[in-house]
Amino acid sequence: MTDAIEELIEQLRGGSVRALSRAISEVENGGSLAPKILAGCFPYSGRALRVGITGSPGAGKSTLVDHLVTQYRSQGRTVGVVAVDPTSPYSGGAILGDRIRMQAHHADSGVFTRSMATRGALGGLASTTADVVSIIEASGKDVILIETVGVGQDEIDVVRLADVCVVAVVPGMGDDIQSMKAGIMEIADVLVINKSDREGSDRLEQELRAMQSLGHSSKEPNLDVHIIRTVAITGDGIAELQSAIGAQEQWLGMEGRLFARRSAQWRERISNMIRQEVLRNIQRPGGGEDEFAKLAEAAAAGTVNPYLALPRMMERLRQAARN
Amino acid sequence: MTDAIEELIEQLRGGSVRALSRAISEVENGGSLAPKILAGCFPYSGRALRVGITGSPGAGKSTLVDHLVTQYRSQGRTVGVVAVDPTSPYSGGAILGDRIRMQAHHADSGVFTRSMATRGALGGLASTTADVVSIIEASGKDVILIETVGVGQDEIDVVRLADVCVVAVVPGMGDDIQSMKAGIMEIADVLVINKSDREGSDRLEQELRAMQSLGHSSKEPNLDVHIIRTVAITGDGIAELQSAIGAQEQWLGMEGRLFARRSAQWRERISNMIRQEVLRNIQRPGGGEDEFAKLAEAAAAGTVNPYLALPRMMERLRQAARN
Repeated sequence: MTDAIEELIEQLRGGSVRALSRAISEVENGGSLAPKILAGCFPYSGRALRVGITGSPGAGKSTLVDHLVTQYRSQGRTVGVVAVDPTSPYSGGAILGDRIRMQAHHADSGVFTRSMATRGALGGLASTTADVVSIIEASGKDVILIETVGVGQDEIDVVRLADVCVVAVVPGMGDDIQSMKAGIMEIADVLVINKSDREGSDRLEQELRAMQSLGHSSKEPNLDVHIIRTVAITGDGIAELQSAIGAQEQWLGMEGRLFARRSAQWRERISNMIRQEVLRNIQRPGGGEDEFAKLAEAAAAGTVNPYLALPRMMERLRQAARN
Repeated sequence: MTDAIEELIEQLRGGSVRALSRAISEVENGGSLAPKILAGCFPYSGRALRVGITGSPGAGKSTLVDHLVTQYRSQGRTVGVVAVDPTSPYSGGAILGDRIRMQAHHADSGVFTRSMATRGALGGLASTTADVVSIIEASGKDVILIETVGVGQDEIDVVRLADVCVVAVVPGMGDDIQSMKAGIMEIADVLVINKSDREGSDRLEQELRAMQSLGHSSKEPNLDVHIIRTVAITGDGIAELQSAIGAQEQWLGMEGRLFARRSAQWRERISNMIRQEVLRNIQRPGGGEDEFAKLAEAAAAGTVNPYLALPRMMERLRQAARN
């Protein structure tokens, strides 16, 4: 490790927000220092509680996160917040960046907030988010809240890298909640019915409990998913939500469950790292990029069958990797 | 190509729904025959109009799709529908499979409907969806409608492989539409305000037009995104929606735009095919899978720094690829 990176990591461990932000940016942009920064942060990471929060648009996730931050801070725990918004790949999506809500914690050095709008340079969003979480952990935060904006597969992957997954739903979402629920039940450790002062909350809770008893969950069968009602805007139910997260944290700590979960996550991450490395080789000058463009045009024109051309491409890549 | 595959492709081109379904399943599951099926279908694909439809949960996408099918059929065009629901990776998500709505077209041999609930074997959802679309095209359908359930990045990727992207929004989605809109504007060729008899439609349309004039779009600046109002449940505005899709189709046909778009898509797809091939090598027995598991456990335990171990892993993979 070079001296500059050693210094950067020392600074971020010492509480420098600037160093922390710089390290994250380098990793988020897939910069050349990224692998060294990550390697340097690794020994200091893995100690925080990681809580993922996802749910449908309009479910009030940001407000829930805001309340949780306040709650953890009142107990003296430091907090990192990663707000993931991958739906804006081109504009760079500064929308989340200037959220008013987090201004309440702006002056609090025990809270670090970061919006991620990019998809992650090469390894995909979930992989990059995991790396960013590791860096924030290295800075010494006790709890990391990972909030997503969308409800698609990418967002589910992001949340699955957390230790505890909170899924927020609201009454009155229409029919599409039916198809959403199956996916949700499978990742949720804690289900939050937010805006639960609205009509339809009782029915929604019944439906969720019914789905639960149908065994849609991939979790160990003896663990019930916690179902919590909140009204985030007034703060109702937030204490219960935190308790449920705490209960899940405790349960995870037993019988090596956290270790098993994190092993599975690392397997996924290592596989991503390798994919990323392979892609980096491909995108390197002379690594086949030009031939890609030509082949793509020929495929669009119908003059080359790309499925038949694949073995030759692979052979060329192997040769490139050998040099 | 083996005789069996040649026969399968001849059958699906001849109108056999069973052969078509079998071919799709083989590709969706990443079966060993998949590359040959895709290679065999390629010469007959690329001729249909591909329309992607995405939008927030509850936006009425299914009903819009259903009306579009009816509309195209009344003009004598055959239609394939691919309903993509990646949010249910474990349960296999049969929820979409038995949709009542498509029963209206059940007896019509000019309509083929397929639900995809898996994420795609190795190459990712968008890649697998593109392959499935190619197979349906080879069966001779004139129009392919690709509908997604979620609104995350994966769904955006799916829709971007279409020629024309339709995004459905509804009034009254709450604040989160703000963050959704930026991503949406970037992929939408046609914006549908569905349930436009609801309160808030005027304001939503104003907001969308305002965003448009702010130039959030990555499209060529001389092309305005069409904004259409519909009430899908009554069929209001469906004819206008189809006209807008047709206008976009026509515009694409000019000055090689469709070719350029499809070249870009093929570039993405070829890159995915290579990634997939690399992963297949890794997951092959002796291809490093065991070592992955060990390394992941060591990383979770903190005893091995995976970022430092990466170069060695890559070296081993290179060796495996050489053999």
